[in-house]
Amino acid sequence: MPPGPLMIIGGAEDKLRRRTILKDFVARSGGPEARIAVVPTASSLGPEVVEVYDALFRREGAADVVAIRPQSRDDAHDPDLVTRLGDVTGIFMTGGNQLKLSAIVCGTPLGDEIVAAHTRGVVVAGTSAGASIQSSHMVAFGGPGSTPKQRMTQVAAGLGLLESSVIDQHFDQRNRYGRLLMIVSQSPQLLGIGVDEDTAAIVETVPAALPGGDDHEVLRVLGRGAVTIMDPARITTNAFEAKRSTAILASGVVLHVLPEGSSFDLTTRTLVPHAATVDPTEAAEMAEAGQDLRQLARDIAAADADPTTLKRRLARSRATK
Amino acid sequence: MPPGPLMIIGGAEDKLRRRTILKDFVARSGGPEARIAVVPTASSLGPEVVEVYDALFRREGAADVVAIRPQSRDDAHDPDLVTRLGDVTGIFMTGGNQLKLSAIVCGTPLGDEIVAAHTRGVVVAGTSAGASIQSSHMVAFGGPGSTPKQRMTQVAAGLGLLESSVIDQHFDQRNRYGRLLMIVSQSPQLLGIGVDEDTAAIVETVPAALPGGDDHEVLRVLGRGAVTIMDPARITTNAFEAKRSTAILASGVVLHVLPEGSSFDLTTRTLVPHAATVDPTEAAEMAEAGQDLRQLARDIAAADADPTTLKRRLARSRATK
Repeated sequence: MPPGPLMIIGGAEDKLRRRTILKDFVARSGGPEARIAVVPTASSLGPEVVEVYDALFRREGAADVVAIRPQSRDDAHDPDLVTRLGDVTGIFMTGGNQLKLSAIVCGTPLGDEIVAAHTRGVVVAGTSAGASIQSSHMVAFGGPGSTPKQRMTQVAAGLGLLESSVIDQHFDQRNRYGRLLMIVSQSPQLLGIGVDEDTAAIVETVPAALPGGDDHEVLRVLGRGAVTIMDPARITTNAFEAKRSTAILASGVVLHVLPEGSSFDLTTRTLVPHAATVDPTEAAEMAEAGQDLRQLARDIAAADADPTTLKRRLARSRATK
Repeated sequence: MPPGPLMIIGGAEDKLRRRTILKDFVARSGGPEARIAVVPTASSLGPEVVEVYDALFRREGAADVVAIRPQSRDDAHDPDLVTRLGDVTGIFMTGGNQLKLSAIVCGTPLGDEIVAAHTRGVVVAGTSAGASIQSSHMVAFGGPGSTPKQRMTQVAAGLGLLESSVIDQHFDQRNRYGRLLMIVSQSPQLLGIGVDEDTAAIVETVPAALPGGDDHEVLRVLGRGAVTIMDPARITTNAFEAKRSTAILASGVVLHVLPEGSSFDLTTRTLVPHAATVDPTEAAEMAEAGQDLRQLARDIAAADADPTTLKRRLARSRATK
């Protein structure tokens, strides 16, 4: 069985109106069979965060919702808490402070169990802080701004559900180009992934098409905003010598801004092509013209069309358009 | 004679402290021989804008400063005003509303004279609105945000001092990635150039190295922020069919973030390599080690170093480090 899908949500997912992303999460987790664990550790709030998501997920038809709320690394070693993840079909990590979440969960039995659940096919979703922690390298905190500057942000270790990556959230709304560019300039083996609010990057493993081939990780976009991918594989940078908080040279970063419905192959780092949209009016017109031209071709083949007849026929055909 | 340099300033250039960019402008314009025209048409303010720049440029040693302040297209047809540009060595267009500036100046004898002055070697500088108007395609106005959306900005025609380009300013500070990405997605033959505040993109024509070769336009960065280049030559986009204000697909845009001191060849669209920085401590250590090793090589060549001697010598050398 391939690993479960990851849902990397950029924060502020719609909870009141269309609820596209939350609906999608419950459906992926099994709909009426969904057993969902909410991990609200990042949040500064208490049980009320769980209450909100509990109500939301049950409203979308989930069978059961449990809270997994460690408040210390000790808690995250509690076998009873870890066991409760044993039969869930979906895990949802809330927003808040990702450094609090990672400091409590990463490298503990509970953290390991979240990774194990992903491996055995469980859906793992997270919004804002819960999105950040999914990458191998995590934005700990940092300032806004479009231009990358040498010390504008800090990196900590994430859960590593998505390898070789660094995820940022509230990307459009909080002007986070600069800090993500700073990180990929300093670590060009990482892929930078910026997720807008009310938008999800859904990562699924697509098994190899041929025996002996490689599995691919494919990212698909759902929601109101976009997912921005920064590929620094061919970067030229001075990040190793830029001083203090000066702007960093980051030349040759390839950018992919992906709105809803687009897909990106994370393994080959290329856009997945999708069928062009067909305009129905144009299609009808072309079909009609095609019919006329086929008739014309038949007439020519039957040698009943001398140049004068042909000219007259074309003029007639144009006049009726 | 090659065309004069363009100075494309991202707004809010330092006027009080180091004044790096304004100093550079006066020096390029001839220093004590500089005769500078200030064009404050974009500004909503009156003569006080001219007074500020007049004082600043004279303080840096300029010989003369004149105001060229058309307030209508009629003014911009006034031969007396146009004639006053005849003997200037530098032109400075202030900030304000670039659509006001372009609506009054572009396609008039005054606008044509600014272009002609550039062609005959005069320095043309502009900040904020005065930067925008230098490109062939000009951002008229638009909203902030990192993610490109279908109708977030408007394009108008600029002076075209820099061909095949669209310039945006206050780039870092006002979060303008989205609108510049929208424009280059819709017009992939343009190069997007985003200039931060207190930062100048200085474009100079470098004559061909060999007879029969092409001149190159090279952009160099001066100031506190960075210049961001978006090269959409290989873009995949849905900009021709994205609806209303949805996020736009913009996959494969190559990004170059350029801090002070870096140069970019606009003709080849590549970074100009520059010499690596040498750390003096490391250089001294390597020089010393190199001396030791050359002595060792001489000893070996003289065959006075049997394996035991060699070992002892290496141990001694390490011990003295």
